[in-house]
Amino acid sequence: PALSHINPQGEAHMVDVSHKPITVRQATAVARVRMQSTTLATIAAGNAPKGDVLATARIAGIMAAKQTSNLIPLCHPLPIQNVTIDIAADPDLPGYRILSTVKTKSETGVEMEALTAASVAALTLYDMAKAIEKSIVIESIALLQKSGGKSGDYTADSGLMGH
Amino acid sequence: PALSHINPQGEAHMVDVSHKPITVRQATAVARVRMQSTTLATIAAGNAPKGDVLATARIAGIMAAKQTSNLIPLCHPLPIQNVTIDIAADPDLPGYRILSTVKTKSETGVEMEALTAASVAALTLYDMAKAIEKSIVIESIALLQKSGGKSGDYTADSGLMGH
Amino acid sequence: PALSHINPQGEAHMVDVSHKPITVRQATAVARVRMQSTTLATIAAGNAPKGDVLATARIAGIMAAKQTSNLIPLCHPLPIQNVTIDIAADPDLPGYRILSTVKTKSETGVEMEALTAASVAALTLYDMAKAIEKSIVIESIALLQKSGGKSGDYTADSGLMGH
Amino acid sequence: PALSHINPQGEAHMVDVSHKPITVRQATAVARVRMQSTTLATIAAGNAPKGDVLATARIAGIMAAKQTSNLIPLCHPLPIQNVTIDIAADPDLPGYRILSTVKTKSETGVEMEALTAASVAALTLYDMAKAIEKSIVIESIALLQKSGGKSGDYTADSGLMGH
Amino acid sequence: PALSHINPQGEAHMVDVSHKPITVRQATAVARVRMQSTTLATIAAGNAPKGDVLATARIAGIMAAKQTSNLIPLCHPLPIQNVTIDIAADPDLPGYRILSTVKTKSETGVEMEALTAASVAALTLYDMAKAIEKSIVIESIALLQKSGGKSGDYTADSGLMGH
Amino acid sequence: PALSHINPQGEAHMVDVSHKPITVRQATAVARVRMQSTTLATIAAGNAPKGDVLATARIAGIMAAKQTSNLIPLCHPLPIQNVTIDIAADPDLPGYRILSTVKTKSETGVEMEALTAASVAALTLYDMAKAIEKSIVIESIALLQKSGGKSGDYTADSGLMGH
Repeated sequence: PALSHINPQGEAHMVDVSHKPITVRQATAVARVRMQSTTLATIAAGNAPKGDVLATARIAGIMAAKQTSNLIPLCHPLPIQNVTIDIAADPDLPGYRILSTVKTKSETGVEMEALTAASVAALTLYDMAKAIEKSIVIESIALLQKSGGKSGDYTADSGLMGH
Repeated sequence: PALSHINPQGEAHMVDVSHKPITVRQATAVARVRMQSTTLATIAAGNAPKGDVLATARIAGIMAAKQTSNLIPLCHPLPIQNVTIDIAADPDLPGYRILSTVKTKSETGVEMEALTAASVAALTLYDMAKAIEKSIVIESIALLQKSGGKSGDYTADSGLMGH
Repeated sequence: PALSHINPQGEAHMVDVSHKPITVRQATAVARVRMQSTTLATIAAGNAPKGDVLATARIAGIMAAKQTSNLIPLCHPLPIQNVTIDIAADPDLPGYRILSTVKTKSETGVEMEALTAASVAALTLYDMAKAIEKSIVIESIALLQKSGGKSGDYTADSGLMGH
Repeated sequence: PALSHINPQGEAHMVDVSHKPITVRQATAVARVRMQSTTLATIAAGNAPKGDVLATARIAGIMAAKQTSNLIPLCHPLPIQNVTIDIAADPDLPGYRILSTVKTKSETGVEMEALTAASVAALTLYDMAKAIEKSIVIESIALLQKSGGKSGDYTADSGLMGH
Repeated sequence: PALSHINPQGEAHMVDVSHKPITVRQATAVARVRMQSTTLATIAAGNAPKGDVLATARIAGIMAAKQTSNLIPLCHPLPIQNVTIDIAADPDLPGYRILSTVKTKSETGVEMEALTAASVAALTLYDMAKAIEKSIVIESIALLQKSGGKSGDYTADSGLMGH
Repeated sequence: PALSHINPQGEAHMVDVSHKPITVRQATAVARVRMQSTTLATIAAGNAPKGDVLATARIAGIMAAKQTSNLIPLCHPLPIQNVTIDIAADPDLPGYRILSTVKTKSETGVEMEALTAASVAALTLYDMAKAIEKSIVIESIALLQKSGGKSGDYTADSGLMGH
């Protein structure tokens, strides 16, 4: 198979989706932010009892989903009907697991929107914690599920799904 | 230690850098994009000769570095004197290793700019290859080095540096 | 009633509108910019006979309507079919009354687009006049009317409608 | 006096600040969001404990400060060293009082950045509460204080300062 | 005939397209970048065998098409189903000929998107070559073809079509 | 000579300007918009008296200057101290001549900012007139003058300067 975004001359181009029907599509992505357990404890303290840490990352992820086609050169600008970001502490990582789900009614899917939202939420957590730990690593940014569209549904292997 | 971006009331805020001197600062970040070896071969074919795949990801990363303060809520807008993105195929991963380096003359560092550039370059590779493999994973987004500024230089452990 | 944008865990999220039908929707908002009568006279002079003062505020308001979903975190990005900005001097205020009307065909309304357009047009007037008066006040930013959508039409009390 | 942004031909233009020295400058602005007391009670409930309502408005205001020169046509793009947003419930209004303070080291001031931040934070509160009350009014957007720069310091009359 | 974007009071406004049907529309624009033949030879060398020069201009043009409604004040924000940019060396100019084609399903056309894409691709070529020649001229930015919509198809005179 | 933005491997990159001193720099660019004389007459009528046509193009050009580094991939984000746009009817063209001048205090010049401002002002004129004439051509986008910086001053040949 060839790359969908590269023409026979090797030039990058958008994929023409004008002939595709508009359907409801949804995608869910994950990102993990691994840190030392003391950093996780400090964030948890900073977030309690009314702290803005996780709210800031959630808002950043939601706003980034809406910027996806301005960041990824060959992405189509899409209407977005919903974005949710769920951030949960995972003491075993240790760190945070971020899930983002994006929904559209469009000719093409929202995998990149979900992945971008999860990535930027993770980067925002990094930003707020970097003064206390520079060795934080964002890992396992991946697509977990997509539905809708001609190419059918997709669910990642259980390894990526985590606990 | 407490989080620098959270005040005693738990509210998110920017860090006041107006009292800090302007110095030259630099940061280097890494991201890895892991895929099946057949996907790596298809990208390599799509990129040769004169193909735009890696160029598209490089340009996306450079442009994203300039959008960092619009994406990460508490980042300061900074002048940027240089951005370089280096993308190398790694048959052992298999996949691609992305290195981004950002330079500024400013009151604060460019770690987030380097991390954002690497992340968006990685997401762009994902976008171009997702039609042939949805199980691509972006992993190990991390800061490798920073220099300049009062907090001193930083070099990540050799494990993150890779080959 | 609970807040539509806050889930039971207290987390901010967008409202899922994917199940709602697409209908024509319209909203009108107002803003008032109150200033000293000498400032009003100076602006009127600066605007005559071909001056750009009000045109600049109108253009700023129209362009801001298109940025609404990038400014208001939980707003949906929407197609916009029309924006009009009407700015009238009001010697009794004294100052300017700004009316903005936005129209869409979408699953959700354009109240925020109309309010954002009026607010940014008002801020632009402030910007151009601030060198001669810093005590200008923007007041009474409010929704005047909306139509379309399941929640029905809305008209503000006559007090907000002004003369 | 004439308008600083309008030339003798009546044309809008930026003000040339290239000859001005770089100094530390600060500005504080206020916005008030007036609503029914039942709406205020609902927001307070949605915000407690750990709710994201006020955090979302704070983040929106901070991010909007960084967009000021993209929204207000004749504003100069400026480095921003700090933004803080303070949102307090005011049962007497009833509603919320928003204070924004912006700091820069630049040739020109940050009044518009502070006013834009307060306005967008207020619009964000409106957005989250509009499903339960459409008659919310944003009022009294005004500059409270500025310091730095040749034109000297400014403090608004006590009426605008509120309690 | 009067200007569609100016009302009887001389005020700029968007054109209300809410009553128009959604149809597939396409537009093709051209730009030419004229330079000395030695500059053309240097770019050709810089682009071979895997150089990024033309790829960078193509990506810039595609991304600019998606920014059109943020740049042109009275343009409607539109979904975009496809953008292609074709850049060919023309030794007779000497220089480069840039063709951009944009496709949408919308109430209004994409002439401005195609023209903006061609213009920004041309500016990007200028940027990369300006260190070796400042006398490069961008000329003949024009609409070549449009189709779809009530106003019917349009094809430019053969003079603009070039070879 | 080689292209400054292409490294020996043919990869696009920004030019590192961190070692260059900050100086005042200025650049002036031109664009011409050629149209039928009847179109020029219609625009003149739409602009008189108090019409917004030229004001809209001026504002669009000023705002575009501030977006240059977001549009041109390898441009540095710069502070901008001034932008002026001058648009004059030229009955001999027939059409409009647009002059843009941009000023900065920075490590690098503002040629691209001036060229982008002129281009977007020209595109905005096209947008407002396209309903009455689709054969409008934007021609002769060129740098007229630059000053400041190590590479010295530049003045275009008199042919480009026009009358």
